[in-house]
Amino acid sequence: MRNLNGHLQLCAVNTATFGFQAPLRQVIDEVARAGFGAIAPWRREVEGQDVKALGKQIRESGLKVTGYCRSTYFPAEMISERQAAIEDNKRAMQDAADLGAECYALVVGTSLNLNDAREQVAEGIAALLPTARSLGVKLAIEPLHPVYAADRACINTIAQGLALCDDLNDGAVGLLIDAYHVWWDPALPASIAAARGRIFGFHVSDWLMPVLDVLNDRGMMGDGIIDLPHIRSLVEDAGYDGFVEVEIFSANNWWKKPMVETCRVMKERLFTRV
Amino acid sequence: MRNLNGHLQLCAVNTATFGFQAPLRQVIDEVARAGFGAIAPWRREVEGQDVKALGKQIRESGLKVTGYCRSTYFPAEMISERQAAIEDNKRAMQDAADLGAECYALVVGTSLNLNDAREQVAEGIAALLPTARSLGVKLAIEPLHPVYAADRACINTIAQGLALCDDLNDGAVGLLIDAYHVWWDPALPASIAAARGRIFGFHVSDWLMPVLDVLNDRGMMGDGIIDLPHIRSLVEDAGYDGFVEVEIFSANNWWKKPMVETCRVMKERLFTRV
Repeated sequence: MRNLNGHLQLCAVNTATFGFQAPLRQVIDEVARAGFGAIAPWRREVEGQDVKALGKQIRESGLKVTGYCRSTYFPAEMISERQAAIEDNKRAMQDAADLGAECYALVVGTSLNLNDAREQVAEGIAALLPTARSLGVKLAIEPLHPVYAADRACINTIAQGLALCDDLNDGAVGLLIDAYHVWWDPALPASIAAARGRIFGFHVSDWLMPVLDVLNDRGMMGDGIIDLPHIRSLVEDAGYDGFVEVEIFSANNWWKKPMVETCRVMKERLFTRV
Repeated sequence: MRNLNGHLQLCAVNTATFGFQAPLRQVIDEVARAGFGAIAPWRREVEGQDVKALGKQIRESGLKVTGYCRSTYFPAEMISERQAAIEDNKRAMQDAADLGAECYALVVGTSLNLNDAREQVAEGIAALLPTARSLGVKLAIEPLHPVYAADRACINTIAQGLALCDDLNDGAVGLLIDAYHVWWDPALPASIAAARGRIFGFHVSDWLMPVLDVLNDRGMMGDGIIDLPHIRSLVEDAGYDGFVEVEIFSANNWWKKPMVETCRVMKERLFTRV
C-alpha cells in the first residue's frame, strides 16, 4: 500500500464535497491552492460554461481530472427516452474529453423491474463504447450501495459491475469503487482482487452511525465506521495506482463549511485515516 | 407457486406489524379471529409472562408459531459479553420451545470490524446448536439489508448466510428470507435456489419510495417497489412450503392503525399483491 502521508498530489477532491457552494473556477483555485493533485467536477458546474476554458484552467493549475460526474440514468420506460439518455451521455463525454477527464462516472439509474433496468444499462453503456474509444474517455461504472437500488442504481456490488464489464468486454469500461458503497460486502476482498486492471477510480468518505440520511449524511474519513486503510490496501493490492478521491455528500455538515476548512480536514484525514 | 387467494391459513402475522400496541394475549386473539394460520411473537411481549400459558392460548386459538423474534446480538468486545449473549439466547430458545415456535429468528448483530463480527456470529450460533437439537427449535439466520451492516447485522446476503450454514453443517440451522432485505440482490434467483431445504421462514413487506427511514418506514405489500410474487415464486420453487409471514416496521403509518384494520389490509394484499 502506498504511503499517502504528505503526498497530497496522490489525492483528489470531488467537487460534490463542497456542496456546490461556489462556481467551478473558484473551486479549482481552492483545490489547487490546497495542494491536491486532481479534481472531479460535476456536470451541473460545467454545462453551459466554456468547457475548454475550464479544462485549460484546471491544467494550468497543475491539476488532473480524475472523473467527470455523472451519467444521465440509462433505464427508462420508452425507447425514445433511453435513446435521449444515450445522446445526453455522449454530449457529456465530449465535455469530459474537453476537461481532460480520465473517465466519465456512470451512476447507472434503475427502474421498477430490476432485470429490465440491468438490461437497459448494459445496452446503454454498449451504445457509448464507440464514443469512449474515439474520445479516449474511459467509462467507470460505479456500483452504488444496495440502499439505492430502488432510486439511483441497479448495479449494487463490485461482482455485478465486473460481470457487466465482462459482458461488454471492452478495455474502455471499468469500475469506480467508492468505499461508502461497498464496505459492507462480504465478498469485498475477492471482488476487488477480481477487478484488477479494471479499477478506474477510488472514492473515500465514511459511514456515520447512526445514519440519518443515506444520501446526504456521509461522513469525513475517520468519523464513521469504514475501515478505509483496509479497503485502500485491497484496491492498491489489485494494482490501482490512481488518485484517492474524497467525495462527501453532507448537506448538514461539510456543505455548510468554508472550502478552505474542508480542504484542511480532508488533508489531515487522508494522511491519518485512509 | 401456491395460490394464496383465500388461503389465509397459509399466511402468518409477525406481531411487530402492530407496533406492540397491545398485550400479546390480545394480539393472538386478533390474529386468530382474522383467520391467519400462524403468528410470530417477540421476546419483549413474552419474557416475564407465563410462557407456557401463552403457548397454550396460541395452540387453542388454532394458530401455529412460525418464529420467535429475535436473538440477542452475538458480537461483543469482551468474551464475557459474548458468553452472556449465548446464555441469553439459550433461555430465549427455551421460551421458543414453550411457545411451540418452529424456529428462533437470528438477527445476528455486528461490530466495527466486520470480519471479527462474522467470526463471533459463527461461534455464537455454533454454541447454540446442542440446545437447538435438544429443544427441537431450529435456528433461522436472517440476512439483513446491507444498510444495516453497521448497526444490526453483519450477515447481509443470502449467499453469505448459506456459506455460514455450510460451515456450521447442521440441519438445525437455516435461513429466514425477508423480501425487504434481499430484493435488491443481483444474485437473488441463484441464491434462493441454492437455499433449497434450508429456508425456514419467508417474510414479506414492501420497500417504499422515497425511503424516509430504512428501519421503521417499511410498507404494506403493494405500496412499494418489491416484486413480491416473483420472490415468492423463487422461494416456493426452491421447495419452501411454509407460511408467508407479514412483518412491517412502520412507526408512522401501520403502527398507528387499529389491529383489525391492519389485518383487513394484510389479507387483501396477501391475496392480490404477493
